[in-house]
Amino acid sequence: MPRVVNHEVRRREVAAIAAQVVVKEGRAGLTVRNVAQAAGCSTTVVSHYFTDMAELFYETYAFAASRTAVRIQEVLEKDPTNITGLIEAVLPLDNERTEEWRIWFAFWSEALTSPPFASDQRMRARKAVERIEKCLQLLQQNKKLPKSVNIAHAADRLAALIPGIASEAIFDPQKWPATRQRQTLRTELQLLGLH
Amino acid sequence: MPRVVNHEVRRREVAAIAAQVVVKEGRAGLTVRNVAQAAGCSTTVVSHYFTDMAELFYETYAFAASRTAVRIQEVLEKDPTNITGLIEAVLPLDNERTEEWRIWFAFWSEALTSPPFASDQRMRARKAVERIEKCLQLLQQNKKLPKSVNIAHAADRLAALIPGIASEAIFDPQKWPATRQRQTLRTELQLLGLH
Repeated sequence: MPRVVNHEVRRREVAAIAAQVVVKEGRAGLTVRNVAQAAGCSTTVVSHYFTDMAELFYETYAFAASRTAVRIQEVLEKDPTNITGLIEAVLPLDNERTEEWRIWFAFWSEALTSPPFASDQRMRARKAVERIEKCLQLLQQNKKLPKSVNIAHAADRLAALIPGIASEAIFDPQKWPATRQRQTLRTELQLLGLH
Repeated sequence: MPRVVNHEVRRREVAAIAAQVVVKEGRAGLTVRNVAQAAGCSTTVVSHYFTDMAELFYETYAFAASRTAVRIQEVLEKDPTNITGLIEAVLPLDNERTEEWRIWFAFWSEALTSPPFASDQRMRARKAVERIEKCLQLLQQNKKLPKSVNIAHAADRLAALIPGIASEAIFDPQKWPATRQRQTLRTELQLLGLH
């Protein structure tokens, strides 16, 4: 494997380990020392892949984002009108998706004040609304969704429900298991007259 | 003023200043030094009111929570069936409410890992669902809401919409001004057949 590719692969591996540290210990637990310990290597090795803490933070966040993106892509490639699948791909219904939300929430403090995190968060949220809009448009074209439904309003509600349901479930997993999350989404889609 | 009351008043004042530091600089900006600077006092004074950083963190969070609680109380005392008012009381529609969401999001990383923050967050979220349920029940009793509406499901959707809309608006205030937030809520209430 060429040296530069190997560097990228190893860097991504370290970011994946850093993500696990954030999942377990939150944002405050993300230190070079903790990542090195979790990776079973020296702090020098971690520092070799990331020039500073800001870079390590950002790559950890990017790792979670790319994992989410792959799942969304898979749903839409199979069926671009699968609105339930599209939204469930980003709800904390299992371990993997729960981990990703723990990472988002761990970094929301950064997104409040750090320009790269803020712009990333903004772009991700805007794309989520657009994806839902496009999916609803297809459903309306295919006569699966009544013509009377205002797509923009429906997309805003569905897009907002995602982080909303996620925040309920992440902080209160006992009261918000997968069944309750799915039911909240399903009853909203039923109100839209989806069939 | 008795000495002990004075202590509590001053402590709350320092928490209010700490809250402003978090609003502007995020969770990482909350240091004894920064709070002292913002308060125009020495770090010794800040340390006098809070035994450790965990206590300063928690009181800052509690300050925002108590301000929110007062607003909710005011709405419900005037009209316990005012579902729009109840929800708008906690949406980031103005500066004050925006500040509070910046504080919640700044501390969500803590709520992932610290037991007192986690239990606080859980209790606040559960109470929000209960308040909405109670309000919807009154509306149904007063025949303002169709009998066919499943209150538990509707309350779950509305409760989830609150942090959901807030997260859209906090990270993308330009795209999610008060009008869009209100419209998202209003169209959901319209779907319920509220009149």
